[in-house]
Parts: sequence; C-alpha cells; structure tokens
Amino acid sequence: MCIITINREFGSGGRELAKRLADELNFTYFDKEIISMVAKKSNSSDYINCATNTNKFPYTTSKSFTLYSAPQKYFTDMLVVERKIIKEIAKQGNCIIVGRGADVILRDFNTVNIFVYSNFEAKMKRCKEKAPSNEHLTDKELCKQIKNVDKQRKKFYLLLGQDSWGDKENYDICINTSNIEIKEIVSQLAQLIKRYLGE
Amino acid sequence: MCIITINREFGSGGRELAKRLADELNFTYFDKEIISMVAKKSNSSDYINCATNTNKFPYTTSKSFTLYSAPQKYFTDMLVVERKIIKEIAKQGNCIIVGRGADVILRDFNTVNIFVYSNFEAKMKRCKEKAPSNEHLTDKELCKQIKNVDKQRKKFYLLLGQDSWGDKENYDICINTSNIEIKEIVSQLAQLIKRYLGE
Repeated sequence: MCIITINREFGSGGRELAKRLADELNFTYFDKEIISMVAKKSNSSDYINCATNTNKFPYTTSKSFTLYSAPQKYFTDMLVVERKIIKEIAKQGNCIIVGRGADVILRDFNTVNIFVYSNFEAKMKRCKEKAPSNEHLTDKELCKQIKNVDKQRKKFYLLLGQDSWGDKENYDICINTSNIEIKEIVSQLAQLIKRYLGE
Repeated sequence: MCIITINREFGSGGRELAKRLADELNFTYFDKEIISMVAKKSNSSDYINCATNTNKFPYTTSKSFTLYSAPQKYFTDMLVVERKIIKEIAKQGNCIIVGRGADVILRDFNTVNIFVYSNFEAKMKRCKEKAPSNEHLTDKELCKQIKNVDKQRKKFYLLLGQDSWGDKENYDICINTSNIEIKEIVSQLAQLIKRYLGE
C-alpha cells in the first residue's frame, strides 16, 4: 500500500510535479477530486458553489481552493467527511494526494511525504506562465495572491493541529523548483521516492 | 564544473551520504581535508592541535570539528584562508564539499546544495551505532552533543552572514534520513542531483 502526499507552495509547480509523478509511477492522483467527493458525500452543492465562486474567494480560485476556504457553517462537517474520504483513498493504496492535509490525516499510515517549494521570483514567473488568458493580475496582486494562498494552507494545518506546514521536518524529501524544469526531475525523483516506499 | 555542497545535522548520516555520493558520481570528496589544507597554508599546527583536542572541545570532537571551534586568535585569519581554499577547490569542479560554509562561500558558483536531516530519535540511534568503542556517553550527554554541534554550525553560518542554516530555502534538495538506510538512496539521489547539475 503506497501513499505519497505532496504539499507545495503556491506557484512552485507542486501540482504539475504530482501529476507527472502519478503518471510515472502509475499511481492514482487526487487533488480537487477530493473536494467533489466531499461535496457529493455531504450533498452539499453550496460547498462546491462557494469553492468555485472566485468573487467570494478572490485569493482562492478553484485552482487553489482548500477546504479552509469553505464558509464557517460548512467547515466542521466537511472536515469530518474529508478525513474519512482521505483515509478511504489511502486504504486503496498506490495514490498521490496533493494538499488537503493528507500527510497529517494519514499520520498512522505509511506515507512518503514530499514538499515542493521555490523562491518568490520563480513562483511569480510560473504563475504568470500558467495564468488563464482572462486573468490580468498586476505584479502586486499576484504577489498578494501567492502569499495569501500559502497563508491559508498554513491556517488549514493549524486547524488540523499541525503548526508547521512547510517545515522540512514533516517531510521525507523537500524539492526546490526555483532553478529546474519540473519535467526534468520527474523520473529521477520517482525512483528516489520508490526507495522511501521500500520498493 | 559540477559542485555539490552538503550540509547536515549532526547524526543524520550526511557525511556517509556525501562520501557514498562522491563514490557514485566519481567526484572528489572534501570534508576534514579542508581543515588540513587551511592549517598547512597558514603554517598553523596549533590550529590542528586545537581541532583534535577533544578535551578542549568536548562537543566538537575531530569527527564534528568546524572552523568555528578554532580559538579566537586564529579564527579571522583562518576564515580568509578557508574561503580561498574552498574557491580553489570549486574551480577544479566535480567535487562534493561537506559543511565549512561552502554553499555560502560559493554563492556565485553554480552549485547544487543539499541538506541532510533526521528526527532526534534517529540521530541518537545513528550516533550510538557509529560511536568509537572508547566513547561512553550517557543519553543526556549525547543529546547535548548533538544539539551543541548543530548550534555551532548555525553560529558559523551567522559569521558568514547567513542566518538561516538548515532553512530549506537555501538548498535544492532536503533529505530526511529518519526512516531510510543511507546506502538505499545513494544511487537514486545521485541521479536526481545530476538533473540539477544539468547533466
């Protein structure tokens, strides 16, 4: 039963790396899928509506939505459902879970935990390259977005009782993507992760 | 010209990893060799005597000696010589330099910087396994030693103008050795590092 969790700074390319690793290892990839599963299980279409309403959550677009962004009235119930779903996913094994507090929720499972980060300049560059054509943020707005998303992620971890999101001690491997193309390291990183998985 | 710098927490197995990586990549390995080179260049046998006098430096045995442990009267001169030597080594390329502030000193060089760490339990275990037969430290003494050596390393970085020894942002890859045998990851990590070296 192999489980990889990936946490990442916004704009570091962590999601791209996770997707590519899932392809390379032939693992199932979970990210926003978990939000849909939570909403479905809770019969809460409002939750999804909120999650994708970028006017209400200007710095947590659907691209970067976390459970923490859910309105207070849904939050507690959602968290219980999310915990359950993540554990169910983990029991099936051979998966990569991006964010969602999976590394904390699966503390009793045998996971390999990865953190992906980069310097601010590289994050700005990557965000601009990946921005949808209808997004026209100034550098100041983009800078604020990057900081706010990670701030939310930190806060979400606090709610899970973990006060050290991003601290290397919580992860098996931390990968800096400032000076590297994601696709250039996928295969080699996958092989290294396999050793941590005991393969 | 490929240069790898390796920083590590005391007891994390960073030195073993560095040595094995040097063998794997066929790179020249520099660690305590640099102390000898500094002493030779400065005609300072006193420096070496101090460095290896474990009575004077109870928490910096020859195993973990850093330039910072040098007596004040030698320190400034030694630092100038060390900087020079590390740059000379780097110019020859294809080398792994362990500690000695090489990542800071070589900031203008194209280095790949690695940090090796582990949890305290694993560090205690590794230190006990690697201890010389005549070393009989209590758990309390060993714990103090581990903390003190890393404290010295942090201080040495402060003297180099770097206040964040061990912060992941300063490194390309951070490797947690808490749950893995060093020899199990050498080959895969070497391949990953090669990508960062642009090979």
